Amino acid sequence: MQKMISLTTFSDEILPKFNHELVGRLRDLDTEKALKESMIYSVEAGGKRMRPLLIFVICQMFNHEIDNGVYSVAGALELIHTYSLIHDDLPAMDNDDLRRGKPTNHIVYGESMAILAGDALNTLAFEWIGRSDVVGDAQKVALMSRLAQLAGPEGMVGGQVADIEGEHQVLSLTQLKRVHKRKTGDLIEFAVYAGGILGNATTEQQAELIQYGRQFGLAFQIYDDIMDVVGTSEEMGKAVHKDNQENKNTYPGLIGLDQSYDTLRNVIDQAKVAIQNLKKTGLETGYLEELLHYFKLKN
Amino acid sequence: MQKMISLTTFSDEILPKFNHELVGRLRDLDTEKALKESMIYSVEAGGKRMRPLLIFVICQMFNHEIDNGVYSVAGALELIHTYSLIHDDLPAMDNDDLRRGKPTNHIVYGESMAILAGDALNTLAFEWIGRSDVVGDAQKVALMSRLAQLAGPEGMVGGQVADIEGEHQVLSLTQLKRVHKRKTGDLIEFAVYAGGILGNATTEQQAELIQYGRQFGLAFQIYDDIMDVVGTSEEMGKAVHKDNQENKNTYPGLIGLDQSYDTLRNVIDQAKVAIQNLKKTGLETGYLEELLHYFKLKN
Repeated sequence: MQKMISLTTFSDEILPKFNHELVGRLRDLDTEKALKESMIYSVEAGGKRMRPLLIFVICQMFNHEIDNGVYSVAGALELIHTYSLIHDDLPAMDNDDLRRGKPTNHIVYGESMAILAGDALNTLAFEWIGRSDVVGDAQKVALMSRLAQLAGPEGMVGGQVADIEGEHQVLSLTQLKRVHKRKTGDLIEFAVYAGGILGNATTEQQAELIQYGRQFGLAFQIYDDIMDVVGTSEEMGKAVHKDNQENKNTYPGLIGLDQSYDTLRNVIDQAKVAIQNLKKTGLETGYLEELLHYFKLKN
Repeated sequence: MQKMISLTTFSDEILPKFNHELVGRLRDLDTEKALKESMIYSVEAGGKRMRPLLIFVICQMFNHEIDNGVYSVAGALELIHTYSLIHDDLPAMDNDDLRRGKPTNHIVYGESMAILAGDALNTLAFEWIGRSDVVGDAQKVALMSRLAQLAGPEGMVGGQVADIEGEHQVLSLTQLKRVHKRKTGDLIEFAVYAGGILGNATTEQQAELIQYGRQFGLAFQIYDDIMDVVGTSEEMGKAVHKDNQENKNTYPGLIGLDQSYDTLRNVIDQAKVAIQNLKKTGLETGYLEELLHYFKLKN
């Protein structure tokens, strides 16, 4: 087997191309200039592109070319993620003026445009998957249905409602897990699901990918909560120590920092079990392992 | 050919069943109670179900059973229409407290829930089409892609932006048509498109259906503008004489009442041409004709 380039090199190669394609497609839309600018502003505001990267890594693992069809699906996922951030930041929601150091969408374009830009991105995601010319119809239907389910009332939007409702009460750990699972985990689960569908994973491989994705999503949220306590703004690229001020339910808040690290370690171990099982089916799982290095286990 | 029941009888039979199915599916969602109630509230707030009715009428015309698959597609369209109304009414948008005589969604459930209920309905629409078990994959992909296009930035949402931008300037008739085409016409166009797809219309029939739908959508908007001037609140089920107060661009405002009626008559005549062409292909077009009686040509 050919020696693989590192995940960093892989991601440094692919993400700029993906970003270019993403913004290019938005620029080509035949719609009002202000709407387009508002959509592009938030999509370009960037972030780590963690969800698209998961799709790319899994396609690579199945030797599936990262073509326009893969970009359509990864792009759709990023559109949904972006719309959710725009709406989350609205005055009636979290009322945030800054995201990743930049003024939020409604600060720049006004509240009505921010609502409509979010709506437009949400809908456009489904068009991108539907119109991709290199993905089969059965795959498209599976991808669009699953994305709608994981992003909709039973998924991300429901998690968002549960999160808001939970702000004024202390949740149990089970409740907190369920909020996070839907609010953050479900779009990450879509990423691994989509990678598997695009790469023609077997049923067994698909199940392990989902298992990996769920653990990854959970680790992502626990780590985010931990870093809000121990991290610096610089490391995190956003304000820290906010959760406590805002009475958010968090892992450190509910079970303390040490046990949060223990839980994180445990979750990562479970992700590693899924990786081992994928390896046994003959896949090169190096990138999935490297992705777990994102979580720094200091203790 | 069997004598058809009147459109009123047909619609009185089918719409209650449809409404029951629509609300039942929402009740079955596994999500937060408050979110579900907020979604159901606005879907039940009702309206004429004009868009679903168009789908049912066309399916009937093609002798396609009005089954669960048809309900999924018509329901999806109604979800999208409902989400657009919820977001339109928000304080940052039209800031309406009442719709069809009932308090608007954000008045009852608060602004953040109204935003999220709209988001959830938007996304759920695509899940309903995707998961329907009696529609083929190719049809689903066509339906979902077209719905996303007609409801998204190049369609309804773009029209909404154009409408807001137009409020502080006088539009040309061409500009006004383009705003209406997208803001109101595009979802009506989806209804006739979906009817044709579900009924397996030929390419020729599909083109005539679209032509009918476009004229119907245009007539719908011109008539709405006219009735805002000449109608009573009772007839319209909403406040009248609002457009003028709000500096909205309307047909009567731009070309006067008489010429608005002339334009409406002209548009209806074009819809009738499409009906004649459909009739020539052997279809029973009675309901499409009856639907045009909605527009009362008083002059």
